[in-house]
Amino acid sequence: MRTTTHPAAGPALAHSRGTGGIDGWILRRLADRMTPAPLRFALGPLTVEPPGTSPVATLRFRDRRAVLGLTRSPELHFGDAFAQGRIEVEGDLVAALEHAYRALEPHDRVPARARLRGRRWHSVRRSRSNVHHHYDLGNDFYRLWLDERLLYTCAYFESPEVSLEAAQVAKMDHVCRKLGLRPGETVVEAGCGWGALALHMARRFGARVFACNVSREQIRYARERAEHEGLADRVEFLEEDYRRLDRRCDVFVSVGMLEHVGRRSYGELADVIRRCLDPEHGRGLLHFIGRDRPRPLNAWITERIFPGAYAPALDEACQRVLVPARQSVLDVENLRRHYELTLRHWRERYERALAEGRVGFDERFRRTWRLYLAGSEAAFRMGSLQLFQVTFAPHGSNAIPWTRAELYDGEAGSSWNAPTS
Amino acid sequence: MRTTTHPAAGPALAHSRGTGGIDGWILRRLADRMTPAPLRFALGPLTVEPPGTSPVATLRFRDRRAVLGLTRSPELHFGDAFAQGRIEVEGDLVAALEHAYRALEPHDRVPARARLRGRRWHSVRRSRSNVHHHYDLGNDFYRLWLDERLLYTCAYFESPEVSLEAAQVAKMDHVCRKLGLRPGETVVEAGCGWGALALHMARRFGARVFACNVSREQIRYARERAEHEGLADRVEFLEEDYRRLDRRCDVFVSVGMLEHVGRRSYGELADVIRRCLDPEHGRGLLHFIGRDRPRPLNAWITERIFPGAYAPALDEACQRVLVPARQSVLDVENLRRHYELTLRHWRERYERALAEGRVGFDERFRRTWRLYLAGSEAAFRMGSLQLFQVTFAPHGSNAIPWTRAELYDGEAGSSWNAPTS
Repeated sequence: MRTTTHPAAGPALAHSRGTGGIDGWILRRLADRMTPAPLRFALGPLTVEPPGTSPVATLRFRDRRAVLGLTRSPELHFGDAFAQGRIEVEGDLVAALEHAYRALEPHDRVPARARLRGRRWHSVRRSRSNVHHHYDLGNDFYRLWLDERLLYTCAYFESPEVSLEAAQVAKMDHVCRKLGLRPGETVVEAGCGWGALALHMARRFGARVFACNVSREQIRYARERAEHEGLADRVEFLEEDYRRLDRRCDVFVSVGMLEHVGRRSYGELADVIRRCLDPEHGRGLLHFIGRDRPRPLNAWITERIFPGAYAPALDEACQRVLVPARQSVLDVENLRRHYELTLRHWRERYERALAEGRVGFDERFRRTWRLYLAGSEAAFRMGSLQLFQVTFAPHGSNAIPWTRAELYDGEAGSSWNAPTS
Repeated sequence: MRTTTHPAAGPALAHSRGTGGIDGWILRRLADRMTPAPLRFALGPLTVEPPGTSPVATLRFRDRRAVLGLTRSPELHFGDAFAQGRIEVEGDLVAALEHAYRALEPHDRVPARARLRGRRWHSVRRSRSNVHHHYDLGNDFYRLWLDERLLYTCAYFESPEVSLEAAQVAKMDHVCRKLGLRPGETVVEAGCGWGALALHMARRFGARVFACNVSREQIRYARERAEHEGLADRVEFLEEDYRRLDRRCDVFVSVGMLEHVGRRSYGELADVIRRCLDPEHGRGLLHFIGRDRPRPLNAWITERIFPGAYAPALDEACQRVLVPARQSVLDVENLRRHYELTLRHWRERYERALAEGRVGFDERFRRTWRLYLAGSEAAFRMGSLQLFQVTFAPHGSNAIPWTRAELYDGEAGSSWNAPTS
């Protein structure tokens, strides 16, 4: 570990242990804990960096307390201190976060499944308040950095070079093809955001869609779009909790909602799927942020960004949602790197809006969102987060695709209803 | 329920309740329990069938005990009585079994996960004896009804019309493409059967393969084929338990072995995967018979056909193998209907060999295998069994495919190592 003192700084304090006094010692302890992350740590005139590496970024602390907080609850403290401007990251923010998370990961103890079990219950009222916290910031804010259709979930890039706009349309097509959606079929969508997928299913696949969301702002916007596009007779947007859904349908779909359902409410989601989905020919798809093994989300994210959010491991989603819903898993696709790329697009647009002074809100809000977008990109890049698309059908149904080939041949629908049924 | 007495039969016994005396009553009770299966039940001159249906088959019982046994342990008793010729099925055997299983299914209580947990432990020695029971019946027997390469696992039919031979080659290609197998890479295969996949990986993809199996007959055959094909320097067949595998590799693959591992040994399989697979760029695939939810296999199958076998639900395979192995699930494909079709090919070939007197063994053995093949086909058709292919890579590895498109474009290998890594 190399500690250097800026030439202008005074001599080390009398009671110092090693170069740089107490501050140097604290910085070195932090750098030790973050080994082998290639990061430089700076406090006042002091800098500490691991030997033999070329740091990707400097973490500059405004005061000693900003360093000390990291030893207690690193995730929450780092996020808050960054938002307050008490920690600055000079250099590549995403790379710095990726290395920091990676260094901390092995120290993370995996909580027992039993301990995860007791986490907060999501009443209909709390779910509404959680969603309001994040999604009702005003559509203008999201319009600054999402695509033109306001899709706030992982896109599907047929190759990494395609635009975000094209990748979001490709994602909707990919989902509809996985579901074998046909004209005239009825879809129930749980958690519809600003309505883009519901409208796409009606417009492009001729479906009749019932889509729900508890965000008032989003539902209002979605209804306006349905009117504007002349689709209001085919898409019904309900300002309603998913638990109240009770309509028999051919297709059940939920993109980016499971993260907000909360582990204790998975059984309620299972009930919804079981009672809505036609047992003979129904198909369903869950698209959600997941983990390789069960563990809570980053504490700062669940406190400041998504209250009550939980990203399940694949086995939890199967065991606690699809098994009790009596569904058979047909297909799972992990699109983690597509979410990394989606987030890069969002972050670049957000940074541009920041630089051009178009974001509004106060500085703390702006820095919070900067960190959230960069940290999410880093988490998908390093595999701390996964993105699963799980396609399923009721147990015993033979109305399932023969192979997945048609997902990739440009034409949907032909191999559904397997020829030997 | 309609009970009829063959004209030649005498009048009902004095103590009868309803038509047909005790036998009629017993048959009606059985038919009640099997409702709504469209099956006719016959004992001596009596037949019972559900009203308003057209039976797909008649179950003819040789004596009253053959009926009564079904009330105690239906699966085990039916299998044994069928093998002994005490139950005959006249009509479509597969359809009869499918309807019978379906009728019994809702009555099946789902065992608590805790109860499944305690099931027999598979020592290396017991595993060897279990495998010997089934796989060392003589290669000539399997040659009667498997494809020419002796693949005894689910094939992959690009369309239902292709031949079994072509579908088995397509399966091997599908597996190698999912793994992104490249020339010169090292593969560890756990449970290699008669060696077809290992040889294919070496011949067609230029891999170096270490393949293990505890069946002496299969290993001997596999080594002969490697010699014969001039691949002995690239494929090493080890007569060894998978738990002894300890070689760092680029690719780990196991096709049709997990069913024999036993639930209590999943942790040992996880250890093997973790220690063998290169953490930076390794990839793995498990291909196995699974269930929609945890439950024991058919009792007759685990007693008479595959001692100690267990087909896990997807969540069990994830939670107990891939999570402790620190793997990230990339892709899951359910090929249940492909196994139904594979089994139909096998059964038709077996029936042909039976009809031509080429099977050998005694009548009981021949009937046992007839029931096993027909019952398996029915189980996959009705969704009682699933076939999962799960592709995975070590947690955090970015050496993963960008999309799955190349699985379907005829050329393997191009999109591995995602462009944005």
